[in-house]
Amino acid sequence: MSAPNITETFLENFHHVATIGATDRGGVHRPAATEEDRRTRDWFRAFAAERGWEVSVDGIGNLFARVRLVEGAEEHTPFILTGSHLDSQPRGGRFDGAYGVIASLHAAAEVEQRIAAGELVAEYDLVVVDWFDEEGGRFAPSIMGSSVYAGLMDREEMLDVADLDGVTVREALESIGYLGSDPAPSLDALAGYAEIHIEQGRILEREGLPLGAVDSSWYTQKLDIEVLGEQSHTGATAMADRRDALVGASHVVLMFQEICREFPEETLVSSVGQVTVEPNSPIVVNSRVHLVADLRADDPQIVKDARERLLERFAELGERLGLEIVSRDFDVRPNLYFPVEGVELVEKTAADLGMGIRRIRTMAGHDSIPLNTVAPTVMMFIPSVDGVSHCEREFTTDEDMVSGLTALVAVLGRMLGGELSGVGFPGSASD
Amino acid sequence: MSAPNITETFLENFHHVATIGATDRGGVHRPAATEEDRRTRDWFRAFAAERGWEVSVDGIGNLFARVRLVEGAEEHTPFILTGSHLDSQPRGGRFDGAYGVIASLHAAAEVEQRIAAGELVAEYDLVVVDWFDEEGGRFAPSIMGSSVYAGLMDREEMLDVADLDGVTVREALESIGYLGSDPAPSLDALAGYAEIHIEQGRILEREGLPLGAVDSSWYTQKLDIEVLGEQSHTGATAMADRRDALVGASHVVLMFQEICREFPEETLVSSVGQVTVEPNSPIVVNSRVHLVADLRADDPQIVKDARERLLERFAELGERLGLEIVSRDFDVRPNLYFPVEGVELVEKTAADLGMGIRRIRTMAGHDSIPLNTVAPTVMMFIPSVDGVSHCEREFTTDEDMVSGLTALVAVLGRMLGGELSGVGFPGSASD
Repeated sequence: MSAPNITETFLENFHHVATIGATDRGGVHRPAATEEDRRTRDWFRAFAAERGWEVSVDGIGNLFARVRLVEGAEEHTPFILTGSHLDSQPRGGRFDGAYGVIASLHAAAEVEQRIAAGELVAEYDLVVVDWFDEEGGRFAPSIMGSSVYAGLMDREEMLDVADLDGVTVREALESIGYLGSDPAPSLDALAGYAEIHIEQGRILEREGLPLGAVDSSWYTQKLDIEVLGEQSHTGATAMADRRDALVGASHVVLMFQEICREFPEETLVSSVGQVTVEPNSPIVVNSRVHLVADLRADDPQIVKDARERLLERFAELGERLGLEIVSRDFDVRPNLYFPVEGVELVEKTAADLGMGIRRIRTMAGHDSIPLNTVAPTVMMFIPSVDGVSHCEREFTTDEDMVSGLTALVAVLGRMLGGELSGVGFPGSASD
Repeated sequence: MSAPNITETFLENFHHVATIGATDRGGVHRPAATEEDRRTRDWFRAFAAERGWEVSVDGIGNLFARVRLVEGAEEHTPFILTGSHLDSQPRGGRFDGAYGVIASLHAAAEVEQRIAAGELVAEYDLVVVDWFDEEGGRFAPSIMGSSVYAGLMDREEMLDVADLDGVTVREALESIGYLGSDPAPSLDALAGYAEIHIEQGRILEREGLPLGAVDSSWYTQKLDIEVLGEQSHTGATAMADRRDALVGASHVVLMFQEICREFPEETLVSSVGQVTVEPNSPIVVNSRVHLVADLRADDPQIVKDARERLLERFAELGERLGLEIVSRDFDVRPNLYFPVEGVELVEKTAADLGMGIRRIRTMAGHDSIPLNTVAPTVMMFIPSVDGVSHCEREFTTDEDMVSGLTALVAVLGRMLGGELSGVGFPGSASD
């Protein structure tokens, strides 16, 4: 491995991409299908084009680059897929997603070189992907592009999703030139998926380990809540006559926070992320508030119990304040286990490289979660300083990024060599 | 008075204007400088043009129609001003403001006719006005056009005020063709102002009275509050590590509601009307919430005490939750007393007409409040069913609207005859 070379190029490119949509406090602002998202995609495209890789864009804006590794390759050549997402949260961090895509591109280049040098033999092609709208900050639900690819969300329905300004996914993708018409690489030929990502928690940092092999994901669900009251005058209406939807919504926000204290420490996490207030005028008591809340736990029963207690409390609250409170479940994601063979493959790789490693669970959603329902999937984490993410001070050291890249190169080499072939996964017949 | 005639025309016109921006639940949606606001203004213009009145639009979008009543009138002819506002809250009621403008136009037509018939002698011209942006729902502060006219707000500064989409007053007025360049009728020549409005409270309805003579306004102030936390991941961040600005803001909203219970019943009213949340993404703990809150009481000390207690609580809350909470006072409006001579004039008028009347205070702000600082001002209320306003079910009967119109005609007749000349007002030298 020409280590210094790939390291330098990777770091140079990573820090270059971090300038696209850079914020004044070290983060990036690149929500899905914005001008900034387009610029990172153009960069991806140019990287692939320079190396003669074939680029395609599917009908939900997923961007693929195929590295031909198998002689006489045809359209239906089996392939290993690797990548993550280049979009960010509004004023988010520069590592979340982008690290995985940029590492995958450089790993692919390294693997291609090793094969050309006769150091490695591949049974499959390698495809690098930038998934559309993983963050869900502009267009909900999150993990959209990879879920459509895996057949878990409907493409047409997702194209009609609108942001808070009424712009649809279809319009936004068209406006940046990334509503593709290419067929996505066939699911039938997908032999495995590998993703590397920052942890977004403190475990690896606390234990001083450079790598995590993700073995499962938390049970998660969202709630879409509508609080309905009546519009009135903030000055002229008697307090007793107000049916203030914002007062109701404020109680709901606090209930989501307080319920976490009713379960063992840090076994349940929850916040309200999105709030829409109507009519939202300084002199009007609000008539409608729409909230999107998030409940996550490793133990599904905790989420289910919390949800049930919350629904009871919403009913009491509505009764007490004369408000209508309607709650709808969505985006319910059961615990998902990554194949143990993949976890062991990462562990063996780390051992060979002399890297410390541990198994780890993910509380956050990732593109690897839908992918794991259609192919054997390997998910790796590298440390996050202070465990913070979705914010401008998200940070991972160059050293940890490079270690992760080294691991990814080795893992992809093993996967291309057929080490995960025939492995079952949640969506497979053996499940 | 040709009563049946003016009544029919007035009601027909009132109900016609209520179709402009009509909502499905009986309200209207006509925020300032929207297309719907433009259409009501065009209607006002056409009404004036038909009668040969001279229309002008000043540099903050106030729309005036001058009825020449004095022989050999010049630009500096003294005049009586009457009107209100045609803009509404988002999905607001069809009576608030519009009633006063439409009543003023019809009263002016009636007065003009009586003078032509020799039944009345005028010492002044009569000018009817539609004030720009009384509601403040789109562009804060409210009562903007009349405050600029009275010299209490700076025109250039107000033209730069932006709505939540970043559109400025200047751009919005230009886009509907109502950023005028006419000089406003000279303040030096303003001899008095009269406004009629719905009560937006329950007092007249409860007492079965058709008319209120407003003698004073409540002490009011707004607070502009910023809650600053830190962005993080709603799923991956430990609860103990979250510094959730929305949780802080929810406590603040409830504090504004709870503080009202610490004072004698209904002596203090308060609500948070406007909320802006950042980054407002379903999977992100919010970093910033901006709130606009309203505090009102008849007794200024109550508002001052409440504000002081709230500021202490914000400091404790910020400390406890690791948030920064910054509060800024704005739009502080002291109690304002309307000249007793004007109140008595309304009472005499009601007695002559055989109408029940009482003195009343206003909790809501009105264009008459800034006008009262530059000229003797008369403010009248008619009943509001259930006391509700700023909502679609705001309602006043045709009968009460017609009674109010009759009173306005008589009051304007007296004012044009000079009955308020020489009366002191808060902004006058005798204050």
